[in-house]
Amino acid sequence: MPVGTQGTVKGLTPSDLRAAGTRILLSNTYHLMLRPGSGLIRSLGGLHRLMAWDGPILTDSGGYQVLSLTGLVSVREEGVEFRSHLDGALEFLSPERSMEVQADLGSDIAVTLDHAVLLPLDAAAQREAGERTLRWTERSLRHARTLATPGGYRQFLFAIVQGGGDAALRREMAERTAHHPCDGFAIGGLSVGETKEETWDLTRAAAGALPPERPRYLMGMGTPRDLLDGIACGIDLFDCVLPTRNARNGMAFTSEGPVNIRNAAHTRSDRPLDPHCACEACALFTRAYLRHLHLAGEILAHRMLTLHNVTFYQTLMAAARRAIERGDLHSYAREFTERYRERDGDPPASA
Amino acid sequence: MPVGTQGTVKGLTPSDLRAAGTRILLSNTYHLMLRPGSGLIRSLGGLHRLMAWDGPILTDSGGYQVLSLTGLVSVREEGVEFRSHLDGALEFLSPERSMEVQADLGSDIAVTLDHAVLLPLDAAAQREAGERTLRWTERSLRHARTLATPGGYRQFLFAIVQGGGDAALRREMAERTAHHPCDGFAIGGLSVGETKEETWDLTRAAAGALPPERPRYLMGMGTPRDLLDGIACGIDLFDCVLPTRNARNGMAFTSEGPVNIRNAAHTRSDRPLDPHCACEACALFTRAYLRHLHLAGEILAHRMLTLHNVTFYQTLMAAARRAIERGDLHSYAREFTERYRERDGDPPASA
Repeated sequence: MPVGTQGTVKGLTPSDLRAAGTRILLSNTYHLMLRPGSGLIRSLGGLHRLMAWDGPILTDSGGYQVLSLTGLVSVREEGVEFRSHLDGALEFLSPERSMEVQADLGSDIAVTLDHAVLLPLDAAAQREAGERTLRWTERSLRHARTLATPGGYRQFLFAIVQGGGDAALRREMAERTAHHPCDGFAIGGLSVGETKEETWDLTRAAAGALPPERPRYLMGMGTPRDLLDGIACGIDLFDCVLPTRNARNGMAFTSEGPVNIRNAAHTRSDRPLDPHCACEACALFTRAYLRHLHLAGEILAHRMLTLHNVTFYQTLMAAARRAIERGDLHSYAREFTERYRERDGDPPASA
Repeated sequence: MPVGTQGTVKGLTPSDLRAAGTRILLSNTYHLMLRPGSGLIRSLGGLHRLMAWDGPILTDSGGYQVLSLTGLVSVREEGVEFRSHLDGALEFLSPERSMEVQADLGSDIAVTLDHAVLLPLDAAAQREAGERTLRWTERSLRHARTLATPGGYRQFLFAIVQGGGDAALRREMAERTAHHPCDGFAIGGLSVGETKEETWDLTRAAAGALPPERPRYLMGMGTPRDLLDGIACGIDLFDCVLPTRNARNGMAFTSEGPVNIRNAAHTRSDRPLDPHCACEACALFTRAYLRHLHLAGEILAHRMLTLHNVTFYQTLMAAARRAIERGDLHSYAREFTERYRERDGDPPASA
């Protein structure tokens, strides 16, 4: 899911997103509740209408943004008190409030509020955050069923699985979350301080304890390699700001690895960003031109790299789906890794 | 002509420009010679190829940018010495050098170098700048005929008409310029300090002394009203940064006058920018959404307002062409003015 934090995927129109292969978007409850406000969005017919996007939208619950972006004031059983990153105003988010905001937005998939924590953290606090998340999941799901979206349709509800950095706790939390009548699961609180190996151990622990017939979404990950590793752990859905954020910093994901368009090596290059890509940026423009646009501060550079990176991620996921259908994910992931350098200028893994 | 200063029209792709009704673009010799450099652009096949724009491109000569953007060091008969606005490096532009840069770029229409001045200025200095411009016109045209574009085709050459703020001098300069074997004329050095009434008197003086069979381009103008007034003076071509620059400041041109999207009046507005416009921004998005995007600093706001404004200008020019064909320009201009407010919030002229 490309990330449309503020109700837009950084410079792209709905038709760009379709052309890039996008099937579902993510947007942020936290950001939209603060600006322009979920009541305003409801009064304008909901987020789909506002953005002119008629595909599915998943909204997160805001728990992670409150933890990572704000001056967190207090976490109580009732909810979270925090200061807005925009103007410092005191704000409150509870399970009920999060679901109300998400109903106002009219997303297709709403996510329950969790008590997010950063690692490392002592075992008792991890357990406490996990238990609270379970209680908040129940409150979120119960309240969500009383709410109406602007379009009048029922939202699908995903419950967040927490459990910190302990695989056994992750497994227990997943099993107990799965008892709830929800449509899918969001695995949260990963990539928050633990090693990559731990991330996948914990993901495997949680995903393995979830029922296979309901989709699993791994929140906030990751690199192209992360997506393939996550899929191998049983993950169906991802969201990540890397393709859009890195585009603004001049970084393009390509089938040969990341390209830093600011690199002097591209000054006279008449090659496209990625010869294996069919996006508009690769069909029309050379690296030399995109480098010039980026260095000149032209927003067409951001737009084209964003379009390309979203296309790259969607193409990767489509290829992974086909590989799964062929029963061949493992060799697809190996081939991908062999030609993919982790940094611009590095030799490929196969060299 | 939408302005593509640095080899791009602010956030728009070639297909956006086509959709907006663009038939010809302007790009800036001064900016491109400094960054990325005209030699680099030639080596990549010229500006059309770089930008992936297959329609006509007019390049200006750089004279006005040297005057307005740089630390001007000296104007000698040989040429102009100035300091780059990018890094302060000492640079030199002569009639010959300007034409060489424009040949490297491979524009379809190149413009001769002029000695630009700002008003007010004493009569002797205006005369001197005009006489020098005539000598530079001759040198520019002579040298241009020795040059090859990357594509191998001949450039059309427009000669600049100067003459400062004196209508008689303007007329004389236009007549003497018209003796040169050029394909069209660029009227320069207007809207540089004189009143609007003077602008049109001077434009009329120059245009009236130019042969009707060769196109006349009024450089660097203007508002929608300016375009209609210029057309009434016999002008065929315009360039202006207003549609693109104002878009980035949140200002949209509409059939009812300018709309400042930051205005609180648009907070809950479900209206498009302009109900009479068929651009993607007006087809898809409400003012409330565009206002949210602009206030949130989202580049989609800049892109959509730019697309809209370019569409508005192209639509205006297309309507003026049809009115001329009907022999009805005067009443078209009057009707336009009656519904067009000069500032957001003002009553229309007819009220």
